[in-house]
Amino acid sequence: MAFAPVVDTTRSPFAQLRPVAVDAVTLTDTFWSARRQLNREVIIPGQASLCESTGRVDNLRVASGRKEGQFEGWFFNDSDIYKLLEAAGWQFAGQPDPELDALVDSLVDEIAAAQQPDGYLNSYFMGEREKRRWTNFDYHEMYCAGHLIQAAVAHHRTTGKRNLLDVAIKFADHICARFGPEEQGKVFGTDGHPEIEMALAELYRVTGDQKYLDQVQYFIDARGYGRLGNPFGRFDKAYHQDHLPFRELNRLEGHSVRAVYLNCGATDLYSETGEPALRTALERMWESMTTRQMYINGGLGSRHENEGFGTDYELPPGRAHTETCASVASFMWNWRMLMLEGDGRFADQMEVALYNSVLSGISLDGTAYYYQNPLLDDGAHRRQQWFPVACCPSNVSRTLASLPGYLYTVSENTVWAHHYASNSASITLPDGRSIELAQQTQYPWDGKVSLTTQTAGQYDLKLRIPGWVREGWALTVNGQAITLTPVKGYVTLSREWRSGDQITLDLPMPVERIESHPLAVDNQGRVALMRGPVLYCLEAVDNPGVDVRLLLLPDDAPLTVSAAPDLAGGVSIVQGTAQVAAADLAWDQAALYRPRRPASGSQSTTAAFKAIPYFAWANRDPGPMVVWLRTH
Amino acid sequence: MAFAPVVDTTRSPFAQLRPVAVDAVTLTDTFWSARRQLNREVIIPGQASLCESTGRVDNLRVASGRKEGQFEGWFFNDSDIYKLLEAAGWQFAGQPDPELDALVDSLVDEIAAAQQPDGYLNSYFMGEREKRRWTNFDYHEMYCAGHLIQAAVAHHRTTGKRNLLDVAIKFADHICARFGPEEQGKVFGTDGHPEIEMALAELYRVTGDQKYLDQVQYFIDARGYGRLGNPFGRFDKAYHQDHLPFRELNRLEGHSVRAVYLNCGATDLYSETGEPALRTALERMWESMTTRQMYINGGLGSRHENEGFGTDYELPPGRAHTETCASVASFMWNWRMLMLEGDGRFADQMEVALYNSVLSGISLDGTAYYYQNPLLDDGAHRRQQWFPVACCPSNVSRTLASLPGYLYTVSENTVWAHHYASNSASITLPDGRSIELAQQTQYPWDGKVSLTTQTAGQYDLKLRIPGWVREGWALTVNGQAITLTPVKGYVTLSREWRSGDQITLDLPMPVERIESHPLAVDNQGRVALMRGPVLYCLEAVDNPGVDVRLLLLPDDAPLTVSAAPDLAGGVSIVQGTAQVAAADLAWDQAALYRPRRPASGSQSTTAAFKAIPYFAWANRDPGPMVVWLRTH
Repeated sequence: MAFAPVVDTTRSPFAQLRPVAVDAVTLTDTFWSARRQLNREVIIPGQASLCESTGRVDNLRVASGRKEGQFEGWFFNDSDIYKLLEAAGWQFAGQPDPELDALVDSLVDEIAAAQQPDGYLNSYFMGEREKRRWTNFDYHEMYCAGHLIQAAVAHHRTTGKRNLLDVAIKFADHICARFGPEEQGKVFGTDGHPEIEMALAELYRVTGDQKYLDQVQYFIDARGYGRLGNPFGRFDKAYHQDHLPFRELNRLEGHSVRAVYLNCGATDLYSETGEPALRTALERMWESMTTRQMYINGGLGSRHENEGFGTDYELPPGRAHTETCASVASFMWNWRMLMLEGDGRFADQMEVALYNSVLSGISLDGTAYYYQNPLLDDGAHRRQQWFPVACCPSNVSRTLASLPGYLYTVSENTVWAHHYASNSASITLPDGRSIELAQQTQYPWDGKVSLTTQTAGQYDLKLRIPGWVREGWALTVNGQAITLTPVKGYVTLSREWRSGDQITLDLPMPVERIESHPLAVDNQGRVALMRGPVLYCLEAVDNPGVDVRLLLLPDDAPLTVSAAPDLAGGVSIVQGTAQVAAADLAWDQAALYRPRRPASGSQSTTAAFKAIPYFAWANRDPGPMVVWLRTH
Repeated sequence: MAFAPVVDTTRSPFAQLRPVAVDAVTLTDTFWSARRQLNREVIIPGQASLCESTGRVDNLRVASGRKEGQFEGWFFNDSDIYKLLEAAGWQFAGQPDPELDALVDSLVDEIAAAQQPDGYLNSYFMGEREKRRWTNFDYHEMYCAGHLIQAAVAHHRTTGKRNLLDVAIKFADHICARFGPEEQGKVFGTDGHPEIEMALAELYRVTGDQKYLDQVQYFIDARGYGRLGNPFGRFDKAYHQDHLPFRELNRLEGHSVRAVYLNCGATDLYSETGEPALRTALERMWESMTTRQMYINGGLGSRHENEGFGTDYELPPGRAHTETCASVASFMWNWRMLMLEGDGRFADQMEVALYNSVLSGISLDGTAYYYQNPLLDDGAHRRQQWFPVACCPSNVSRTLASLPGYLYTVSENTVWAHHYASNSASITLPDGRSIELAQQTQYPWDGKVSLTTQTAGQYDLKLRIPGWVREGWALTVNGQAITLTPVKGYVTLSREWRSGDQITLDLPMPVERIESHPLAVDNQGRVALMRGPVLYCLEAVDNPGVDVRLLLLPDDAPLTVSAAPDLAGGVSIVQGTAQVAAADLAWDQAALYRPRRPASGSQSTTAAFKAIPYFAWANRDPGPMVVWLRTH
C-alpha cells in the first residue's frame, strides 16, 4: 500500500516532523478503536444513508442529468458527500473493505458524472443558476472544491485509486486557471469559507505540481482587503477573515470554523515556503486563541449570531457556540503547528479538543450529533440525527477515521509519541528503517503508559509529557528510573534499543479544580473539574434532588475517582459532596429579583454529587448540566 | 385644543382607567422637562436631518416621482419618518411650535405625494418591486403602515390637523379591504412585525369606525398557525409569534420588540372587547416576562441572533440584546395593562424600563443612541449617531415627547398619580370637572413628593406606592399623618378637598443590594445596586486603578449616597469600599485556565468605588462597566 499520512509534510522543508501513515498504527485500545469501529459500522453508513435520503446524492444526479428534478437544500450540500468520502477514505487505512469500497465507488461515479466538461463541479450552480457560478464568494464553491480534494487525497492515499483524484485535479485545475493575479490574465477570487487552501496544499503534496501551492499562496494573499464584499448583508468583513491581510491578523475573528480552517491552510503554506510573517501571524493567533478565546473544552466560538468569536474572555458557557467543526478545525490546525516544530503545547490543544469538544459532538451510539457543545444547559439541548447544515457529523467521522495517523510522527532518527492509546505500530524513519512499537495504556482513565520496542537499533524516542501533568510523573526503561527534563513538552530517550525493551511512563491523574482568568466574567468564582485530559460535568440524571446549577463546590471538599465500567462504555467518574445554599432552595419562584437578604447564602445543606466526562453528557435522560461550579 | 391622550381608553369598556391629555400636564421638573426640551431642540431636529441625509425622505420623493433615483436602505425605512412625525406630534402638546409645524407639514406633503391612488404607501415597493407588494409578510409593509397611523393619530390629537390622518385612513382602508376572512372575499395576511394592531385600535378610537377594531381582531386571530411562513430562512415561527395562536401563548418568544408590540395591540383589543382568553394570555406572558425573562434594567431580549428571548432565566449581562425599542415596547404594554385595572405592578415595570433601559438608549446630549443596553461591557460598546436599522432613536424620542401623558389617569371621581415628577396639571374627570394639581418632587433622587390641590371638591386621589418601597413610607395631608394600606400598589385619599390642600408622600430610598433568582446563572453570587427606581453601575472612568469587573462587594460593606450635581445633569451617586482578590490582580496574563490555588481568593485588597445611574453610562471616557457585582 502507498504511504498514507493525514497531512503529508514528508518533503515540507519548514516542517520538522514527518507524519506516520494512518495504516501504520493499529489501535488496540478499547476507547478509540471502539469508536473507529463504530465509525465503520454505524456512523459512515448512517451518513451515507442520510446523504441519499436528504437528496444530497440526488442533487448530483440531477446535475449530471441522470435524474429529473431540482436541487434541494443548501448550496454547500455537495460537501457533505465529499466529507463522507474523506471519512471513508481514511477508514480504509488498515482495513480493506469491499462493501465500503463499493459504496465509495458508486458515489465517485455520481460525482464524476456531475462534473462539467470544464472541470467545474457544484450541483447547486446548474441550470438557471449556471450563470451565477463564481459570482458570490460566500456561496461555498471553493469550500466544496476543497472538501472534494481532501476526499480525493484521502481516498487515493489509502486505496491507491485515482477515480476521485482525477475529478479533484480537474476541478482544481479549473480553479487555478481562473483565479489569480490579474497580470496573469486571471480574475480576483478567494474563498468566503476557507477550506480549499489546505486541500490544495495536500494536492500539491500528492501530485508534486507547484501550481497548487502557488494557488494556496494566492488565495491567502488575496484576502484581507475587503474584496470579498458582504454578500449576505449580515456579516462584517471579519466574518470571513477579509478585514485584515493575513500577516496582520493578531487574534481569531469572525466565523470560527472559517478562521481556523484558514489557519490550517496558512500553516500548510508556511511548511512549504517558510515565510516568517506567516509564522508570526499564526503564532499570534494561537496565543490569542489559547489565552483569551478558547473554552476549557477546547471549543471555539462564543456567539451564535456569527457562529464565531466574541471579544477577549467572552466565554459564556450556556450560549457557547463551540461548534463541533471548530474543534475539529482546532485539532487539525494544532496538528499542523505541531508538525512545524514538535512543541507539545500544540499536542496539548489537540488532546483538549479531541476528548472534550470533538467527542462530545457525537452520541455514544454514533447516531446523533451536536452542532454546539455548550458547557451549561437546562436540559433542552440534545443531539440531532442530522442538520440542514450538516457539516459537523462528517467532521467527527473523518477525525475518527484518521485518528491512528495522529499518534506518532518521525524526524531524523526519532520517533515521537504524541498521543497515548494502546496500539501496535510500524513506523518508518526518514532513513527507511521500520520501527515496530507496541503501546499499552488505559489512557485517558489512567496515566500509565507502557511502550515496548520490537525493533533493535539506535534511535530516539520522544515521549510527550502533557501540559496537564503538574508533577510527580515518572519514567522507566526496563524498570530503571530515568530522570529527564521535558523540552517543549517532550522527553527524549536516546539509546541503542533492543527488541523487547520496556518503557513505562507514569503520568499522575489527580482530579484538578481549574479556574479561569478573572476577566472571563462568566467563570468568576467557579471551578471546573478535569482529570488528565478529560473535562467533567454534572448532569441531572446522576444528581437527582437538586438542580446541578445550584451546587457549590467548596475548595476543601474531597474528590474521589472511581471506575464506572457500565457508563458510557466505561469511564472514570468523580464524586464528592457539594453544598447548596438554603436560600437558593427556598427561593420564591415568583420573584426574579429581590433585595438581598442578610442571611442569603450563609446556611447551606450538603448534596453528594457525581461528575461524568463531559464528552458523555446528554446520552441519558435530559436535564440540566453544568461544567463550572461555584466555589461558595 | 382637542383632547390629546397617548392611548385613548376613554370609551373603552374594559379599561378601568382613562387617560389624561399629554398637554394637560406641564412638566416643571429638571429631570424630564430638560429631556423633553432636548427632544425638541436636539433630538427631533437631529433625526429629521438624518432622515434627509440618509435618503429616507428622498425615498418618498422617488416614490412620488418628485425626484429621480432609487430606493436606498432597508425596506422599512419609511417607518423612521413616521416615528419622527409621531414624536413631533406629541411634542406639540402644550407647546405650539410654528417651526416644527412647518417641518412636519413638509414631510406630510412628501408622504401624501408618495401615496398610491389605491391608498398603498411604501416607498420600497415601487417600480420593479411594485409587483411584490404584500407577497412577504416580513417585509414590514404593515409595520410601516402602523407607524404611519400612530403618527397621524398623535399629530391629529395634538394639532387637530387632518392632513396626515387622511393619508393614514386611506392606507388603513386599503389594508382593511384587502386582508381578512376568505369568506368575505379577502385574502389571508397578518404582519410579520406587529405594530399595526395597536395603531388600528387607536385609529378606531379616533374615527369611531368599527372596521379598524375588527381588523385588529382579525390580525390577532390570523396568526399562530404557521401561515406567515419563514421568509428569510433564518428564523422559526416563534420569531414572529406565529408558532401558537395568541390565546395559547404562555411566555414571550421570538423577536422581543415584535412580541411586546403584539401584546400592546392585544391589550388594546381586550380593552374594547373584554375577551377573557386574551386577558389570561396577556397575564401569563406578563408573569413570564417579569419572573423569568426580564433584565433588572427592564431590558428584554437575551440573544443577538434573533434579537429576542432565550430560555427562562437566560439573562447574560454582556451579550444582552435588550434593545431600546423592546424597553419602549414594555413601557407601552405596561401602560395598556395598567389602564385595564389600575394595578401598580404595571406602573412599576413602566418605571423600571423608563429610567433604566429607555433612558440608557440615548446619550445625555441627545445625539447618540444605543440599540443594545447591556449590563456588562469591556468599554467597546458605545452609542451611535444613527443605525442602518434606526428604529431605536425615534422610539426614545416619541416616548420623551409623550411622557406628560403617562403621569396621571382618571377613573370615576378619581385622579390616579402613577409616576412622580414635578408638574402642574389640569385633569378632567369623567364627570367633566377639571382638577388642578401641582406636584413637587426631586424624584428619582428623593422619594419625597408633595402635591397641592388647586381645585376644591369631592374626589379621590390615588397615589402609587412603588413596588421598590419596602417599608417606612409616610403620607400626610396638610401635615397630618395618614395611615393607609396600599391596594394593588395605590393608596386612596378620599375627601372633600379644598384648594391649597397639601399632600406629602415620603418614599424612603435606601440603596439596595438586589439579587436574582438562583437559576439566573449569570447573576449567581452577585448583587446589583438600586436606589428607588434607579439602577446603578460602575464605570472605569470613576474607578481607576482596578478593572471594575474584578470588584467584590461584601454584604456588610456600607454604602453611602451623595448628590453629584455636575454629573449627568445632576444625579445621586453611590459610594463604598469594595474588595479585590489579590489572586485576581496577580493573575498571569498568559494563562486562561489554571489549577485553582489553595490561596485563591483568600487575600484581598480594598478599593473605594463610585457607582452612577446606569442610564448615564458611556457618556464619558470608554472603559469597562459592570452592574452585577460579586459578593465574595
